Amino acid sequence: MSSEAPWYHENFEITGSSIGFRITKKLDEVQSEFQKIEIFQTTDWGNLMVIDGAIMLTTRDNFLYHEMMSHPTLFTHSNPKRVVIIGGGDCGTLREVLKHRDVESATQCDIDEQVTRMAEKYFPELCESNGDPRAELLFDDGIAYMKNCPAESVDVVIVDSTDPVGPAEGLFNQAFYASCLKALRPGGILVQQSESPLTHLGLIRSMRNAMKGAGFTAFRTLTFPQPCYPTGWWSCTMARKGGELDGFRERGAGSKTFATKYYSAEIHKSALVQPPFVADALGG
Amino acid sequence: MSSEAPWYHENFEITGSSIGFRITKKLDEVQSEFQKIEIFQTTDWGNLMVIDGAIMLTTRDNFLYHEMMSHPTLFTHSNPKRVVIIGGGDCGTLREVLKHRDVESATQCDIDEQVTRMAEKYFPELCESNGDPRAELLFDDGIAYMKNCPAESVDVVIVDSTDPVGPAEGLFNQAFYASCLKALRPGGILVQQSESPLTHLGLIRSMRNAMKGAGFTAFRTLTFPQPCYPTGWWSCTMARKGGELDGFRERGAGSKTFATKYYSAEIHKSALVQPPFVADALGG
Repeated sequence: MSSEAPWYHENFEITGSSIGFRITKKLDEVQSEFQKIEIFQTTDWGNLMVIDGAIMLTTRDNFLYHEMMSHPTLFTHSNPKRVVIIGGGDCGTLREVLKHRDVESATQCDIDEQVTRMAEKYFPELCESNGDPRAELLFDDGIAYMKNCPAESVDVVIVDSTDPVGPAEGLFNQAFYASCLKALRPGGILVQQSESPLTHLGLIRSMRNAMKGAGFTAFRTLTFPQPCYPTGWWSCTMARKGGELDGFRERGAGSKTFATKYYSAEIHKSALVQPPFVADALGG
Repeated sequence: MSSEAPWYHENFEITGSSIGFRITKKLDEVQSEFQKIEIFQTTDWGNLMVIDGAIMLTTRDNFLYHEMMSHPTLFTHSNPKRVVIIGGGDCGTLREVLKHRDVESATQCDIDEQVTRMAEKYFPELCESNGDPRAELLFDDGIAYMKNCPAESVDVVIVDSTDPVGPAEGLFNQAFYASCLKALRPGGILVQQSESPLTHLGLIRSMRNAMKGAGFTAFRTLTFPQPCYPTGWWSCTMARKGGELDGFRERGAGSKTFATKYYSAEIHKSALVQPPFVADALGG
């Protein structure tokens, strides 16, 4: 493609770093009740979704995030049947969750229906399981949804949200984690995207403290590459209701019946390894 | 710092993606015989070195690259005594190599003395081992240096170069690899930075083919995060003269007597794991 094409740069105030992609044109734009959603066509990364100026995903690299937000947790839980996704409006996490045949129902609760409408149009591959009879798509407040969730009715909660500012801020505090704990069955797991292990160790620490304050008993932070997010290196943090978070269903992961591009049992183990500077910051 | 500070963006033509940092001012600039070297002060990443418009390193994140370019290879070789670094003018790789007490001599051969002069001034922590009696700093053509190296005199060659265009292009072909092979003792290892596993799998494949063509017998590509390089996810590729590249001195790595921020025996194992899409592209 032409090198004269313009570039979309997102400058991250908090990290002092920037990520960008070369774009050919803007494909669409909608101002929803909650936020401004823009879709660009890029020269090398497929389509690009931007919400309120923040890069959300590209066609080319979203598999890293979606696979790592779902499979490690689903293969850590002993028998996940009921999954709730808070946020995740692009439906990519839902698609990965539904690859697990033993999952009986998966509810995705994103506050903004327009995110899903845009995903259906510009990332149709992520929405290919939206018609699965096990899938439920709600467009509602995730904080209220978890608060009103019947006690001990859920095995896994996946918080697939934007950064902890604005609409998503309420998803990163002890009150929300307490709702998740109540909704989870014993042994249930909450997993949440937890920003960059290089620049957000303070956030990860405070998330883990708040999860502990809410009553969760064990915590693990996994890391993985994600080019479209600040520093290109991302993480998710798991918290378990009761007991430990040691090991996972390695045999199940090793013999899974569906294809993945990044996730594997070996990658799962690797993602759990904390480099010394991360272990130091999180207390081992 | 002020959010009005300007940003330095590097737009990568080949990958269609961009990385940037918020800068407060330009600290220095020199046009050497070979290239233009610029130093910026950033708000959050310490100092930033840029060569011919390409981001080389920042104070904050270079430990990832330097540790991963040195320790995995030195702990894979059974007994590395003589190390040659081609490129590496910022001296960060040399510093890591000299942390290994059993290394008897390490020669760094970078074509451009000005890179080292700038590193001494703006990245002094990377140059703290330059006075080590085991260190030799040469400013010369690395291709010629390897060609003229006595046969079977070296245990490890580390190619710490810029991208495979311009001055560094000749470091990515079979003729250069043949020189390295000749200079290495049996069991010796060549390791070279090999760009992003997400966007440069074709390059990694062709490097491995050229290494094989030169007579190397075993190959491994390791991946690691590196925020200041395209996609934020980087790799190095090892090639061994004779025999296999299975395993490493895990006990040695686990009981090393020096500190590292990213590298550990566990991280070493993790870096060797290839996600399915990489294994598919490189043939397992």
